[in-house]
Amino acid sequence: MSNISRIVKIVEDIIYTPTYTLLGIDYKGRVVYHTLEGGFNSIWVLDPSRGKIRLSEKTVHWPGEVSLNGTRVPFTRDVGAGRETQVIGYIDLVNEKEFVLENMEPVRILGFFDTGSEIAFAGASKERISLFLVKKDSVEELARLDSYAHVSFFDGKVITGSGNLRKNPKSSEIFIYDLSSNELKVVTPREGSVNESPIITTSKKLVFESNAYTGDAKELVVYDLYRDRFEKLVFREKDYSEYKPVEHLFYREFNGKLYVIGKKDGRSKLFVDGRVIETPAGTVLNAYPHGELIYFTYTSLKKPTGIYVYDKGVSREVLVSKLPAEVEESFGDIEFVKIKSFDGVEVPTFIFKTRKPRGAFVVYVHGGPWWETADEWNTRIAPLVALGFNIVAPNFRGSTGYGERFRLMDIGDPGGGDLLDVEAATKWALENKLGEKALIWGYSYGGYMTLWAMFQRPDLYECGVAGAPVADWEEMYELSDAVFKEFINILFDNKRELWKQRSPSTYASNLKKPLAIIQPQNDTRTPLKPVLNLVYKLMESGKTFELHVIPEAGHAITTPDKLAIVMTHASIFLDKCVGK
Amino acid sequence: MSNISRIVKIVEDIIYTPTYTLLGIDYKGRVVYHTLEGGFNSIWVLDPSRGKIRLSEKTVHWPGEVSLNGTRVPFTRDVGAGRETQVIGYIDLVNEKEFVLENMEPVRILGFFDTGSEIAFAGASKERISLFLVKKDSVEELARLDSYAHVSFFDGKVITGSGNLRKNPKSSEIFIYDLSSNELKVVTPREGSVNESPIITTSKKLVFESNAYTGDAKELVVYDLYRDRFEKLVFREKDYSEYKPVEHLFYREFNGKLYVIGKKDGRSKLFVDGRVIETPAGTVLNAYPHGELIYFTYTSLKKPTGIYVYDKGVSREVLVSKLPAEVEESFGDIEFVKIKSFDGVEVPTFIFKTRKPRGAFVVYVHGGPWWETADEWNTRIAPLVALGFNIVAPNFRGSTGYGERFRLMDIGDPGGGDLLDVEAATKWALENKLGEKALIWGYSYGGYMTLWAMFQRPDLYECGVAGAPVADWEEMYELSDAVFKEFINILFDNKRELWKQRSPSTYASNLKKPLAIIQPQNDTRTPLKPVLNLVYKLMESGKTFELHVIPEAGHAITTPDKLAIVMTHASIFLDKCVGK
Repeated sequence: MSNISRIVKIVEDIIYTPTYTLLGIDYKGRVVYHTLEGGFNSIWVLDPSRGKIRLSEKTVHWPGEVSLNGTRVPFTRDVGAGRETQVIGYIDLVNEKEFVLENMEPVRILGFFDTGSEIAFAGASKERISLFLVKKDSVEELARLDSYAHVSFFDGKVITGSGNLRKNPKSSEIFIYDLSSNELKVVTPREGSVNESPIITTSKKLVFESNAYTGDAKELVVYDLYRDRFEKLVFREKDYSEYKPVEHLFYREFNGKLYVIGKKDGRSKLFVDGRVIETPAGTVLNAYPHGELIYFTYTSLKKPTGIYVYDKGVSREVLVSKLPAEVEESFGDIEFVKIKSFDGVEVPTFIFKTRKPRGAFVVYVHGGPWWETADEWNTRIAPLVALGFNIVAPNFRGSTGYGERFRLMDIGDPGGGDLLDVEAATKWALENKLGEKALIWGYSYGGYMTLWAMFQRPDLYECGVAGAPVADWEEMYELSDAVFKEFINILFDNKRELWKQRSPSTYASNLKKPLAIIQPQNDTRTPLKPVLNLVYKLMESGKTFELHVIPEAGHAITTPDKLAIVMTHASIFLDKCVGK
Repeated sequence: MSNISRIVKIVEDIIYTPTYTLLGIDYKGRVVYHTLEGGFNSIWVLDPSRGKIRLSEKTVHWPGEVSLNGTRVPFTRDVGAGRETQVIGYIDLVNEKEFVLENMEPVRILGFFDTGSEIAFAGASKERISLFLVKKDSVEELARLDSYAHVSFFDGKVITGSGNLRKNPKSSEIFIYDLSSNELKVVTPREGSVNESPIITTSKKLVFESNAYTGDAKELVVYDLYRDRFEKLVFREKDYSEYKPVEHLFYREFNGKLYVIGKKDGRSKLFVDGRVIETPAGTVLNAYPHGELIYFTYTSLKKPTGIYVYDKGVSREVLVSKLPAEVEESFGDIEFVKIKSFDGVEVPTFIFKTRKPRGAFVVYVHGGPWWETADEWNTRIAPLVALGFNIVAPNFRGSTGYGERFRLMDIGDPGGGDLLDVEAATKWALENKLGEKALIWGYSYGGYMTLWAMFQRPDLYECGVAGAPVADWEEMYELSDAVFKEFINILFDNKRELWKQRSPSTYASNLKKPLAIIQPQNDTRTPLKPVLNLVYKLMESGKTFELHVIPEAGHAITTPDKLAIVMTHASIFLDKCVGK
């Protein structure tokens, strides 16, 4: 007797459990947040007298922070049925109304910031990447960036951001656009270093993350605009420096104090002017003070993202979902291990154990590749744990969160060392009896790695599910817009000769075990066409495969209904692969 | 809030409701039957002292009747993961053991009959169609048939069957193979007439269905082998002749009496030597007497196929499933209407109403085309009624069950008059307020008609689901085996010039509304390749579509787990198309 409905029920229970992410505190002191409560991604406000109020009318693609003056909250709206062409919108928190720039030309928006009267953003069309400014209901192109770059701050006079502005695949520079002079300035504390996401303080200094002085971990660095001078940020309080973060999830100045969230080993901690604020083990994503209170967003692999408040030394829940009992009971221990790879490099890996083991584990390969599986709520992992799989989530070389040296290791070598890291984690899990059967699943770059592993290590995995995978780097490049052409150039360190050699489509005939491919139809990052070409090759060589093409969906699965479809297909396939 | 799990639950509830089909009465007087109880298609015996006993070890592809001597029951087993290459097997009812001819060369089996010591069957390979005999554990090729023909009876000396033996697309002849002389004889009461499924009576006469004397409805005709003479079968009892069947589902001789199931208007009646046996309205599929009792299989659109017994004027349930209350409560009235088509031809149509209407109806197009939607349990229809759709199931020209004149009307014209009939039924349903939205769904030829309707009448339907469709007749022909090449030649009346003109792939750019395609990977009738080619065209012309390729499945979806997958995809898509 099959049990597809039971599987789908668990998937839906988890996916429709609302998560709550703080977007800031508005001019009235109210909590503004993002949630999928009510069934779609939307922006809400928690009003002390009226309770929870939804302010967006339709699905929000990407919510921004509450504007500097607290009267608005910007967002992007997808207008291309997943094709990642977006327009800018904002919620007017005073009149509690949604406003969308419907007549702007849709672009791929790469970062935006709202002062409360103007919004700056970076946007990419098929041909170019530029910096834009929204004034009232019109959009002005300020300057060409023509590199993979995003806006991170805007104080009304100066727009700051960062990106690959020197066209060096291994570096990232700071850009500063001055609205009074219309000048775009690119700076870096050291050529070739990685510098990201500058904010502007009230004393008109830039604060950003940089590995300029370590060559590895990212520290906070201050740039004095007028003196054109860089220096390391040092707090008087020792908590922050003793914690030794390798990167930062958040830094903002409120009432003259710096709120910084430092991160290492897949977890994070909040510091105010260097002093630690006690929060539970896991990940604090952001924090906004209001009077004596500090509101913050907290999450872990076991805990759906929720909003908490730190009040006189104690953290309380503000908006937090409770998981269904059946799901909660299935969640076992979380372990963080460093697994030695072929060359001695340690692969930081999260293990999420199930309490209902079925003798198999799933190697979950995150996307990016400059991304990671951290101790954060993950709807691509949680349903599988509830269905009885142990999860092994290796942060292969190239992952973020473990220093720039580690992250840059796969530049010029995608599908090389990273595959060997995934293989090492798989073998470690087999040796450590996480299950007799190894399964593999991933989305985007994780989908690529899944295909790649199924074709390059055809006996290691019982089966694999590749979501929105790269099937062929060359074909993908041809179909890419300016941003993703740039992305491929950076990832391969401009070594085009590797494209065919590192493409799954070159090795389709290697497949030995069941493979499922789940592909959004309107994907503009890893497009459908190369995937169909691969499917054609699989068919011609008599291979067994399952395929789902999902209409009206793009690469970024941001709505719960689409995510439920993806996870339903993945879960049914993995379940069937293991049997009873 | 989505409700995929609710949809899947209803689909599974219905599909896993066991159906019971009588296969005969064994030498001990026990009921032998076919069911999916326990989760897979298998052969069971109802033992008076031991209860229900499963006798097959693995999935049965196609169960046969209990052998003439009552000691065995033959079946076919799929050995090509859905590719419809099968081997012969049988259950030894004496030792209650399964035996499978594992070393025979797998073929597409087109009809078989077991005497209890030997099994005759027709089988098609890629190149040829032949008549075979199984003696003990060896298989002998008796003769080449080289036409679309099947075995219907075998008495140990003579094998009979019927098929397109004269290569006339509009006729069917009787064949008689004499094992003593090794001669294959082809006979017909009238050249060009349709004659089917001969049995051999104890007086060594052939009884078969024929339209030789009517030119339309099929009557029972007797052929005297020795005198080489045909005559109409006439019963002394008037019930049968007054009923005026247009065809027959079953006829067998038991204890010198003829048990005949006549059929018209999508329902059937059982007659013993011409006298009617009272059974409920719906479809009686077969009947086997045992002493004074008559066991029979009964089904209707609302009633899962089950086994009943007629005992002294009253019918009792023997093996019948009860549907879940939620499903039962959703089933509304069944209506049978004849809808006028463009040219005045009446289209016999079943309407199955839901008690939970959502304002939309689904036009269900049956496969074949020489098939029909009758008043029989149908797992491609029932889940949709339970989900709140009214069902409109037109028996378009070409359907069986309404006389040979009607059936032969689409030969040489597939996608012509039949599409206009489907269109007429759709418009009738809109006018008669069966729903504001028309949806369309079908499998095999019904999948073809769905694609065809979506491309030829792009504004009529809100959306469509095409299961295992013909995408391109020319490409399908190239990939077909001997049987299906023959099928296409017959269907098109050898008019190859129509192939491209009647192929959905020629009109892919016409599509305007959402389309889902569900395609078994190992389909050898409507293969994957032309479907992928069509999908490629849809992609290139920027159309929205959903696609599911199901691995390890062939054209005939015979297992509940695969059927659940197909109906899950179809139901989720149709549900989404209507919304709330």
